[in-house]
Amino acid sequence: MSIDAMIAEMAVAAKTAARQMGRVTGDQKNKALTAIARALEAQAEAVMAANARDVTLARQDGMAPAMIDRLTITPAVLAAMVKGIQEVVDLPDPVGAMGPVMVRPNGLEVRRMRIPLGVIGIIYESRPNVTIDAASLCLKAGNAVILRGGSEALHANQALAAVIAQALADAGIDPKAVQLVPYREREAVHALLQQEAHVDLIIPRGGEGLIRFVVANSKIPVLKHYKGVCHVYVDKGADHEMAARICLNAKVQRPGVCNAMETLLVHQGEAATFLPAAGKLLAEAGVELRGCPRTCAIVPQAKAAVDSDWPAEYLALILAVKVVDDMDAAMSHIAAYGSNHTETIVTGDTGRAERFLREVDSSVVLVNASTRFNDGGQLGLGAEIGISTSKLHAFGPMGVEELTTTKFVVYGKGQVRE
Amino acid sequence: MSIDAMIAEMAVAAKTAARQMGRVTGDQKNKALTAIARALEAQAEAVMAANARDVTLARQDGMAPAMIDRLTITPAVLAAMVKGIQEVVDLPDPVGAMGPVMVRPNGLEVRRMRIPLGVIGIIYESRPNVTIDAASLCLKAGNAVILRGGSEALHANQALAAVIAQALADAGIDPKAVQLVPYREREAVHALLQQEAHVDLIIPRGGEGLIRFVVANSKIPVLKHYKGVCHVYVDKGADHEMAARICLNAKVQRPGVCNAMETLLVHQGEAATFLPAAGKLLAEAGVELRGCPRTCAIVPQAKAAVDSDWPAEYLALILAVKVVDDMDAAMSHIAAYGSNHTETIVTGDTGRAERFLREVDSSVVLVNASTRFNDGGQLGLGAEIGISTSKLHAFGPMGVEELTTTKFVVYGKGQVRE
Repeated sequence: MSIDAMIAEMAVAAKTAARQMGRVTGDQKNKALTAIARALEAQAEAVMAANARDVTLARQDGMAPAMIDRLTITPAVLAAMVKGIQEVVDLPDPVGAMGPVMVRPNGLEVRRMRIPLGVIGIIYESRPNVTIDAASLCLKAGNAVILRGGSEALHANQALAAVIAQALADAGIDPKAVQLVPYREREAVHALLQQEAHVDLIIPRGGEGLIRFVVANSKIPVLKHYKGVCHVYVDKGADHEMAARICLNAKVQRPGVCNAMETLLVHQGEAATFLPAAGKLLAEAGVELRGCPRTCAIVPQAKAAVDSDWPAEYLALILAVKVVDDMDAAMSHIAAYGSNHTETIVTGDTGRAERFLREVDSSVVLVNASTRFNDGGQLGLGAEIGISTSKLHAFGPMGVEELTTTKFVVYGKGQVRE
Repeated sequence: MSIDAMIAEMAVAAKTAARQMGRVTGDQKNKALTAIARALEAQAEAVMAANARDVTLARQDGMAPAMIDRLTITPAVLAAMVKGIQEVVDLPDPVGAMGPVMVRPNGLEVRRMRIPLGVIGIIYESRPNVTIDAASLCLKAGNAVILRGGSEALHANQALAAVIAQALADAGIDPKAVQLVPYREREAVHALLQQEAHVDLIIPRGGEGLIRFVVANSKIPVLKHYKGVCHVYVDKGADHEMAARICLNAKVQRPGVCNAMETLLVHQGEAATFLPAAGKLLAEAGVELRGCPRTCAIVPQAKAAVDSDWPAEYLALILAVKVVDDMDAAMSHIAAYGSNHTETIVTGDTGRAERFLREVDSSVVLVNASTRFNDGGQLGLGAEIGISTSKLHAFGPMGVEELTTTKFVVYGKGQVRE
């Protein structure tokens, strides 16, 4: 059987499983999730042994140590997977919730009912813990899911998928509700992206290359972000101590993630007093500074930025720094070079704070807080399946509710249309 | 300049206009909409003269009379456009509405703010009134819009677009907020679908061929429905008089639209008493009946259905009829052949009504009411821009709120991430 035919068969099975999943109670879903957690603990050795095969192959292929690190399932990583499932169990069940009744002039009673999306395809790279995180969130929302993990993690992912399938079957749920694509070929991704009759949503997670491939080839709606070029703007009259603390956290606390700051914008009235001290602090934390001419004139640690620095997502201890005339110039810079991901203003001025919040076109806009708070858990959504910078369906972090939709339910007494 | 380059230039101008539109107050938007309505009345003669050129060309090309009819702007059609704009003015402004505050343990105050989507591309066929309807809804929601109407309506659409541009400029709004693609070539549609850096959403309206072309070629999210294969299920114990009234309305009142019934499913316990009378009524209304063997045995007007009848969207006075064993068989038939559009159950049984509402996977599910109510106006959303049977972002009729999204706004006091 060809890869295309196998993927089509998986998609049909997922659609059938999704019909059952849509009817499963919150209680049953939680029992199944708990069963997965228990099975994961019980079969920890088998999962880690499968992962060790992946790691050995990756070492032979010369994978970089940082990537090997992300690939490895340690007992601590496995415990975090189990804890993650428990957190999903504790979330409220979104399915079946009813919106308010709208009574129409003809007496029709119209409501919106929250329902699962159906079948979700997750396409991701490297880290095998996504297999557990994504499966548990999709199940909680009443969906079936098709997982296509990184080829370098295939052994671990197959072991994890086997654990999930057995636990689902034991809990009386169709094990086809969670399926893993067993092929390393990119052809399998392409085949999955053609299954629009059976798959309702694709979520790619990984590098920009993977995501662009998915968007270019998918007939199915895609929720994604390409990159996070996040800005902090230090406004006129900002508290320098607060601004420095936020900048340090946004840049240094975890520089390799999408909600880390990549560009610092400083009002010209604050630059002379704020930037030398803040630049020193950042440089001492290991940050390479690339500044505009006005920055370089007052920050000895800064080297000159070039054009390609302004739209750059470094994902590293590098920071572009620019002095701007005012908030309008900052917002124009963000509109020109930003990625609609996360932007922060540090200010004491309420009016400018409100304007910044309103006019900056990003999924999360903050006043006086680190960009690192663009995260489902931090913003109160619970575990997140990813962050969207497309505006359709979800804009920002996506939790379990973003894996559902609503339909209209209408109660009549025989009404017909005039 | 090539078509590709011209479309790219339009998209960039639309993005700039969208930034301004996002800041415009509800009052300004209503003034601009009212100005468009007044200008349309003032320039009715010019619009109808341009339309007359389209109609003359269409007649020369041998366009069918029904299509000529849809293409023609009569004084009544023009008055309806003006009235449509007034209805959009009267809708509440969705932009800027704030969701409830969630206070996080660290004191961050998180809210969701409703915002425009940005730039919307509408790709449609034939009827030039869509130009006015779509433009006014997009403007009300604070978006910029690029319109690509049917090539056979190009003269009228250009006249309408000129009226809109002048009214916008007079109201102090960037006239690039509403732009019409001035090319007949399908190449222009393809070019528009590549503008993902500047266009946030594509809505195609027209035949299944157009919509499949758009989905296959778009890098931009698309909201659409391919077709409406809508079902009425007459349950055991249903009121026959009510069932017949609903069937007649759903099939006959306007058979050429997507929310008309295409298949009637009848419980075997009611078939013998309900179907002969209902079949007679439908046949007298000019409906051709295509029945399953059990239907043909009791309805003399019915001829035998073939396999291709069950997934058919006739958009005409033809109806497929099937006798089913029970509600589960009806729901399985709908799952196999339906289009996730609109389904109705006629029943007196509350338990089965609730099961049908919950388990049928359609954008609008009704109890004891005509399928014809799947419509933004009828369900209380106001004017609609279309109906979505994709589950992402919107599922069902889309009103002005569905042309917006939300972003997160976060108020801090210097919080950083641990």
